Amino acid sequence: MSLIVAKFGGSSVASIEKIKTIAHRVREMRMRGHDVVVVVSAMGDTTDDLIQLAGATGDDLNSREMDMLLATGEQQTAALLAMTLNNMGCSAISLTGWQAGIKSDSSHNKAKINGIENCRIKKEIEAGNIVVIAGFQGISPEGDITTLGRGGSDTTAVALAASLQADRCMIFTDVDGVYTADPRMVPEARKLTKISYEEMLELAVLGAVVMQPRAVEVALAYQIDVEVRCSFNKNPGTIITKEANMEKQVIVSGVAHDVNCARFAIFDVPDQPGIAKTLFKSLAGAGINVDMVIQAAMRNGRNDIAFTIGRDDLKKAIEVIGKLVIEIGASGMTYGDDVAKVSIVGAGMQTNPGVAADMFEALADENINIHMISTSEIKVSCLIDKDCIETAVRALHRKFELDKAE
Amino acid sequence: MSLIVAKFGGSSVASIEKIKTIAHRVREMRMRGHDVVVVVSAMGDTTDDLIQLAGATGDDLNSREMDMLLATGEQQTAALLAMTLNNMGCSAISLTGWQAGIKSDSSHNKAKINGIENCRIKKEIEAGNIVVIAGFQGISPEGDITTLGRGGSDTTAVALAASLQADRCMIFTDVDGVYTADPRMVPEARKLTKISYEEMLELAVLGAVVMQPRAVEVALAYQIDVEVRCSFNKNPGTIITKEANMEKQVIVSGVAHDVNCARFAIFDVPDQPGIAKTLFKSLAGAGINVDMVIQAAMRNGRNDIAFTIGRDDLKKAIEVIGKLVIEIGASGMTYGDDVAKVSIVGAGMQTNPGVAADMFEALADENINIHMISTSEIKVSCLIDKDCIETAVRALHRKFELDKAE
Repeated sequence: MSLIVAKFGGSSVASIEKIKTIAHRVREMRMRGHDVVVVVSAMGDTTDDLIQLAGATGDDLNSREMDMLLATGEQQTAALLAMTLNNMGCSAISLTGWQAGIKSDSSHNKAKINGIENCRIKKEIEAGNIVVIAGFQGISPEGDITTLGRGGSDTTAVALAASLQADRCMIFTDVDGVYTADPRMVPEARKLTKISYEEMLELAVLGAVVMQPRAVEVALAYQIDVEVRCSFNKNPGTIITKEANMEKQVIVSGVAHDVNCARFAIFDVPDQPGIAKTLFKSLAGAGINVDMVIQAAMRNGRNDIAFTIGRDDLKKAIEVIGKLVIEIGASGMTYGDDVAKVSIVGAGMQTNPGVAADMFEALADENINIHMISTSEIKVSCLIDKDCIETAVRALHRKFELDKAE
Repeated sequence: MSLIVAKFGGSSVASIEKIKTIAHRVREMRMRGHDVVVVVSAMGDTTDDLIQLAGATGDDLNSREMDMLLATGEQQTAALLAMTLNNMGCSAISLTGWQAGIKSDSSHNKAKINGIENCRIKKEIEAGNIVVIAGFQGISPEGDITTLGRGGSDTTAVALAASLQADRCMIFTDVDGVYTADPRMVPEARKLTKISYEEMLELAVLGAVVMQPRAVEVALAYQIDVEVRCSFNKNPGTIITKEANMEKQVIVSGVAHDVNCARFAIFDVPDQPGIAKTLFKSLAGAGINVDMVIQAAMRNGRNDIAFTIGRDDLKKAIEVIGKLVIEIGASGMTYGDDVAKVSIVGAGMQTNPGVAADMFEALADENINIHMISTSEIKVSCLIDKDCIETAVRALHRKFELDKAE
């Protein structure tokens, strides 16, 4: 008898019909003799609807009260799924975050799990119940309801799997698993059977968000194998694990792309200590995340500084930087959202020099100009013109032979 | 500095606009220097919507899971009102039933409050917060969420007022207070400034549900004065208290009516011990509440038994009794929903003989036939033809001079 932790996301529980579908799936696991702990998100757009209601109360959304409000969404799904299972003859019980013993810190809206006091869960499993837990929430040391931030239900599931020493942790979502590239762009993209935690983290950061990065970090920290599968079919998914490619060292695992980019450049910035700090502190102060950064070679004691940000932040950045340009004595600025980022990710890069060169070659062969480059140990990203993005993704997929079986 | 407990029902918090209106009202109390504890119901139709969702999961609605589901409605309102108050510059905090220390028994869907551990509430009041509490819910000894049954928020408010030794307990609702008769039927009906707990209980049972009977019982047990007022205007309401008419003994306080009645009669029931038990146990077993009961004088060892039930239960009662008529050896049955009940209520009746006779006279003067009569110490009810109900209510209102000032 093994213990399965299975998480179902918002689109998998968006209606009572869909809840019934996943209830059948949970029931099958139970019929095969497994103990099952289910983690659920709020139904479909519930969280967005609640945020909209809250927005109507005024401009200042008290973060403690937001958590009090938002946590109800997952509680509703948990109760409805438990009812559905009971109606199918499967004894089930729902638990809120605090009932499940999910202890968090007090950072409302983005709380971190400190630990799980799992005695109630264990008691209910021993009593023969399927335990349905409201994801995304915990309880602070002060006894207040907290939420773990968007996608926090993934984190709940992985943390529960670690705490309960579950045999399997399954994240059911609306995609089939992790692909070598976006299948809508590259028809020959292939589903990966395995991927390492580190690669998954890079992919998530690069916009291919199959699973929340924080949940991957917890899985990495506790070395929990996590399987990402589709709620709507029985296809095998992708297993996120520590040794993704034990038999054969695959250099590049996938190609990711992100069209939600904007570029910004500031000309002739005086080469003085503290200028970059002023610039990026101002952006951070306005809540703008900077992604790639380039400082071009110095000419006459002046630099050009270029960076990318999320496209939605462009307007705000123009305001912030527009004021600063004069203040710091730069000669001007330019910006645009006509760019996109393409990346290759693979744990094998660390020990295989020349991968970046192969990438640049593939792009050059397609006459694609590279505006910026950034690299990590297991990733190379290039900023290119947005209208070249499909050609670039396909060329890289071919170059690294990602359509071939693992 | 005094402490006010104020409860706002579902129609008072049905939209963010209405929540803002009551937030202004709460803020005014605060500005006048009072400490305020607010109890809220779920927004408008939220509870009904959740019940409908639950109904779609199957036929068996697990009562523990129903409580888990329904309790979210009040939690949402509490969070939204706290946000609204904070946005108005009034520091406020919301608490769920369990956070507020509302300990109940384990009777899901109809739990009773065992006690209130009010330390968290007191701490928040001392910290200068308006405390907004989700009504209608508590926590069982097992740590499960319970609900107190429909209208349980009234009970929450009165129990909190008792526990916190509040100076005032105010129930804000969509009516102006308790009237001498339904103002839609009797234009000259007058709002009562005071009414006794006992009279209020009778009125609630008679269908004039301004406040839940259970909440009145708690108020009576703890001798809490409760003021019923309208959320949408500043008119004074009605105070439910122990001595309603200290200066002048009013014999009849009000006329109540109930058109949601059905009559049932069974002919020639053998006069044997246990027959009535069989009859009424079968009805109770089918969840049918019996109101008035008459057993007519015996003829030839056989009785006629007549009773009234809620109109909605008529179909079910026909099934249950239809089977029994033959079984118990009765000769037949008759039923109909062409009846209504009119009642007079007043604490002064106990010491004033002849009130019932005055009532029958008033009805006779209008040529209204009385089918059944039932009495309590402070109430006389008559079952009459439904199409006479308006005439009857008006005649009784006149007869007992209820339009005259107290």
